[in-house]
Amino acid sequence: MDNFEYQNFTRIVFGKGEVSKVGKVVRPFGSNILLVTGKESLKKSGLYQRVRDWLEEEGITVADLDGVQPNPLLSIVHDGIRIIKDQGIQVVLALGGGSVMDTAKAVAAGAAMEQGDVWDFFTRRRTVEKALPVITVPTLAASGSEMNGFMVITDEESKHKLSTGSPHLYPKVSILDPTTTYTVPADYTAYGGVDAVCHLLEPYFNGPDPNTPLQDRMAEGLIRTIMDATEACIKSPEDYESRATMMWASSLALCGLTKAGVGAHHFPVHLIEHAVSVLFFVAHGEGLAALLPGWMTWWAQDHPKKTSQLGERIWGISGKDISEKSEAGIDALRSWFDSIGCPKNLSDIGIRAEDHVRLAENAVFQAEIWGISGTYSVENIKTVLAYCQS
Amino acid sequence: MDNFEYQNFTRIVFGKGEVSKVGKVVRPFGSNILLVTGKESLKKSGLYQRVRDWLEEEGITVADLDGVQPNPLLSIVHDGIRIIKDQGIQVVLALGGGSVMDTAKAVAAGAAMEQGDVWDFFTRRRTVEKALPVITVPTLAASGSEMNGFMVITDEESKHKLSTGSPHLYPKVSILDPTTTYTVPADYTAYGGVDAVCHLLEPYFNGPDPNTPLQDRMAEGLIRTIMDATEACIKSPEDYESRATMMWASSLALCGLTKAGVGAHHFPVHLIEHAVSVLFFVAHGEGLAALLPGWMTWWAQDHPKKTSQLGERIWGISGKDISEKSEAGIDALRSWFDSIGCPKNLSDIGIRAEDHVRLAENAVFQAEIWGISGTYSVENIKTVLAYCQS
Repeated sequence: MDNFEYQNFTRIVFGKGEVSKVGKVVRPFGSNILLVTGKESLKKSGLYQRVRDWLEEEGITVADLDGVQPNPLLSIVHDGIRIIKDQGIQVVLALGGGSVMDTAKAVAAGAAMEQGDVWDFFTRRRTVEKALPVITVPTLAASGSEMNGFMVITDEESKHKLSTGSPHLYPKVSILDPTTTYTVPADYTAYGGVDAVCHLLEPYFNGPDPNTPLQDRMAEGLIRTIMDATEACIKSPEDYESRATMMWASSLALCGLTKAGVGAHHFPVHLIEHAVSVLFFVAHGEGLAALLPGWMTWWAQDHPKKTSQLGERIWGISGKDISEKSEAGIDALRSWFDSIGCPKNLSDIGIRAEDHVRLAENAVFQAEIWGISGTYSVENIKTVLAYCQS
Repeated sequence: MDNFEYQNFTRIVFGKGEVSKVGKVVRPFGSNILLVTGKESLKKSGLYQRVRDWLEEEGITVADLDGVQPNPLLSIVHDGIRIIKDQGIQVVLALGGGSVMDTAKAVAAGAAMEQGDVWDFFTRRRTVEKALPVITVPTLAASGSEMNGFMVITDEESKHKLSTGSPHLYPKVSILDPTTTYTVPADYTAYGGVDAVCHLLEPYFNGPDPNTPLQDRMAEGLIRTIMDATEACIKSPEDYESRATMMWASSLALCGLTKAGVGAHHFPVHLIEHAVSVLFFVAHGEGLAALLPGWMTWWAQDHPKKTSQLGERIWGISGKDISEKSEAGIDALRSWFDSIGCPKNLSDIGIRAEDHVRLAENAVFQAEIWGISGTYSVENIKTVLAYCQS
């Protein structure tokens, strides 16, 4: 186990009906808030109006930043910052999925800047030193943004999707009410499961010969649980127990816990997926599903031990040599993606071999910012993409 | 899954050599501290003096509260409070095991009281509203006190060992340096493993038909890991990886994570063990080992599902009906206790059937304070004790 520091700053309020506490939860942080939301679905379901009512009951004044889309855009972050400055907003409340939460974080950090532009955080020219308090009410079990200090934003002009993190970006409170996810359709339910599994698997493949039995067991337990819950939620969208399991498991999947102590690790699949979704407009989880089995096949060539262990512990694969178990494990993951209606390679999302160069170049731009372009060169990423193609 | 709130306030600084940061970690909280320690072993190993040196390098003035013993006493808590008040102490630093950490917490909370006695927190006459900052440097992987808001103290006069908790009792920072546990002897290493496993198992048995697949998987992963690490630490006391696994796993075992969402649950084995250790002066983990298999046998009569699942997932027991698997699981736990040199029933620690009444009466005193004497009557506890006798 490597040395590490760990602290998670977010207070979680979890459970059926807990969203009705939103006014009481927000009020101690301020009475003038920006409410960040996504597309129309929350308005249709009536949740948006109920949240407005609960906020107003506590005397909270609400300004709206709505229309946030998947792979959220820098331009809307700028809009939000402008509203905050114009209206003396004190708190940013996110009601939506990962895109909405990440937009809220970017707005909260950007509005607290004394100089520079919010994009400087993503290009790592500046570090987040402070932010307005962010409170989240996730309505999708996927990104884990509700319990961590990360955010991912796309600059539509330069065509780059970049991430950054800071202790100041942890939501002060996140209200996780699984009933708010009942209306998530099957495809996005599946993408959420894939995203959470990917958050667990990337640090799981943490070096040539890792010695992290505790982190492995925690990740495996969460993965198995998320797989079961994803299937159950697709089958019965209003099954409270499965939605609850899915919601808490996806929060825990990227709350820092399973990564602590695993040592140096990157998120190569996320890195490449950012290029995929910024250039091809696929959903994040969809892009991850198209890449993960291919990336694992490439990785397992030199590191079959962990993929083999995964096959053994998740799918009960046994009685074969390590390479065979490794291969069978990756095949099982691929089949699982298929069974939940997800892509399992780049062909499945319409990406062709001739697209690899510009994907690799876009990914390497991020790798340079992350300081890992020594590991992830254009050539290296092209090699990985070939494994992901079909 | 039940509704819950979750937040953990402690910053963890984990790893080899990290104890040398103690001065720098403590300094932001104050320069006049109380250093709480246990018996002589830390002085012999030189760790005590090294910690003093690191503190002095940062200009920190140290007052000592030493000689804390296992099942720590109220009288020494009173001594500590007096020193704090006399010397204007700002911070309490615990260097030791669970007893030392719990003493530090009690002293920190007691010194901040405006009226009443610190024992009022344990009898639940008063609630902890504030406390001096506590920083811990655990030298034993067992209690999890380094990452939670609980404390257990024994009043030697009334012969009661009582616990309480508060968000104000979370250590601000805990430095977990596994090398500080190299000198823990085999018996206390084993007791630590039993304590951590017991912290996981008590909420695991959380009702007649629980639906908590996520919490179950997390607990099972931690239990399996702790069992492996306990054995490895006993075999090779200076095996860094095993000591590290043990240390982080025992912290996570009672940090609130595996309990969140399991719903109403008590710690009946801990409840009864407190009576055992206060009346018979056994180590806490020793008492737990003597009680846990018996308690599980009693519990499994009406709830064999979870004990069966445990048998299946921890020891790979299969192919039998639910009651048989349950019984085989409990037998496997008993055998494991035996293999690591722990007692597995009350006879093994010299307790006889004629002691049951006073044990039950002592335990029920706590149950009344915990507000659960409806469930845990003298008769009920005597029945459980009969299962634990041999």
